[in-house]
Amino acid sequence: MSDLLHFEDYAAGQVIDLGTYAVTAAEIREFASEFDPLPFHLDEAAGRASLLGGLAASGWHVCSMLMRMIADSWLNKSASMGSNGVSEVKWLKPVFAGETLSGRVTIVSKRVSSKRPEMGIFECLFELFNQEGVKKTEMTAVVFMRVKAA
Amino acid sequence: MSDLLHFEDYAAGQVIDLGTYAVTAAEIREFASEFDPLPFHLDEAAGRASLLGGLAASGWHVCSMLMRMIADSWLNKSASMGSNGVSEVKWLKPVFAGETLSGRVTIVSKRVSSKRPEMGIFECLFELFNQEGVKKTEMTAVVFMRVKAA
Repeated sequence: MSDLLHFEDYAAGQVIDLGTYAVTAAEIREFASEFDPLPFHLDEAAGRASLLGGLAASGWHVCSMLMRMIADSWLNKSASMGSNGVSEVKWLKPVFAGETLSGRVTIVSKRVSSKRPEMGIFECLFELFNQEGVKKTEMTAVVFMRVKAA
Repeated sequence: MSDLLHFEDYAAGQVIDLGTYAVTAAEIREFASEFDPLPFHLDEAAGRASLLGGLAASGWHVCSMLMRMIADSWLNKSASMGSNGVSEVKWLKPVFAGETLSGRVTIVSKRVSSKRPEMGIFECLFELFNQEGVKKTEMTAVVFMRVKAA
């Protein structure tokens, strides 16, 4: 545990790079088959005929890709304690096969839980962009992190 | 398309049953390995030592299970046009292996889009419970549905 970053190691206003994620048609179809089997996430022609305009990832798949980026680039290097929810997800634009996403998280605010002094609470803004810098998804969520001093 | 239900076929206040979903340890670990590889979603002992209190599904996995229930029980019988986001997800309690989830959606309000007269907008409350009726997750989100008359 000693090499993990804790609540005290992060500052309000800090921005953390979340790396990249390459989106493939195979993964879009695989996720959709299991969890979101609507035609526009499964079939290229149905995607083109829909509001999405092409074979686009399920919004839940996009959130899951973002979660993987968050885990790899941030939380698995930290004493993360999870989260109890998300206050907003905006799927601003569809995410298509062949795009490469990049992301960042901004720690909007930080405080120690009044009920659990060993637990810090970060309010975070997560943003996902494609390779051309077009913002695809924006999410606001809480992340819990252990307080080293506690 | 003619046998699909449309915007006009649903009423504000209507409650739709979303069926059930059996949660397994194998699926919890598989989803977490791919999208949320944090110790408390991968390992029983780490889960017990965490705030979650046991091997618990990723919150994104819970949302994805809920999406599957929504697709099977509702949207694939309807002229769904997708969604542009979620206004809140509350992971009220952890979802454990061996639980069977049941769900329901309440159509809180309905209106036709002012920009797209062919598109109806439902504001929905989604609720997930375990087999003992304990509420596990609550979500508020918009669902778009085609207007038959348009």
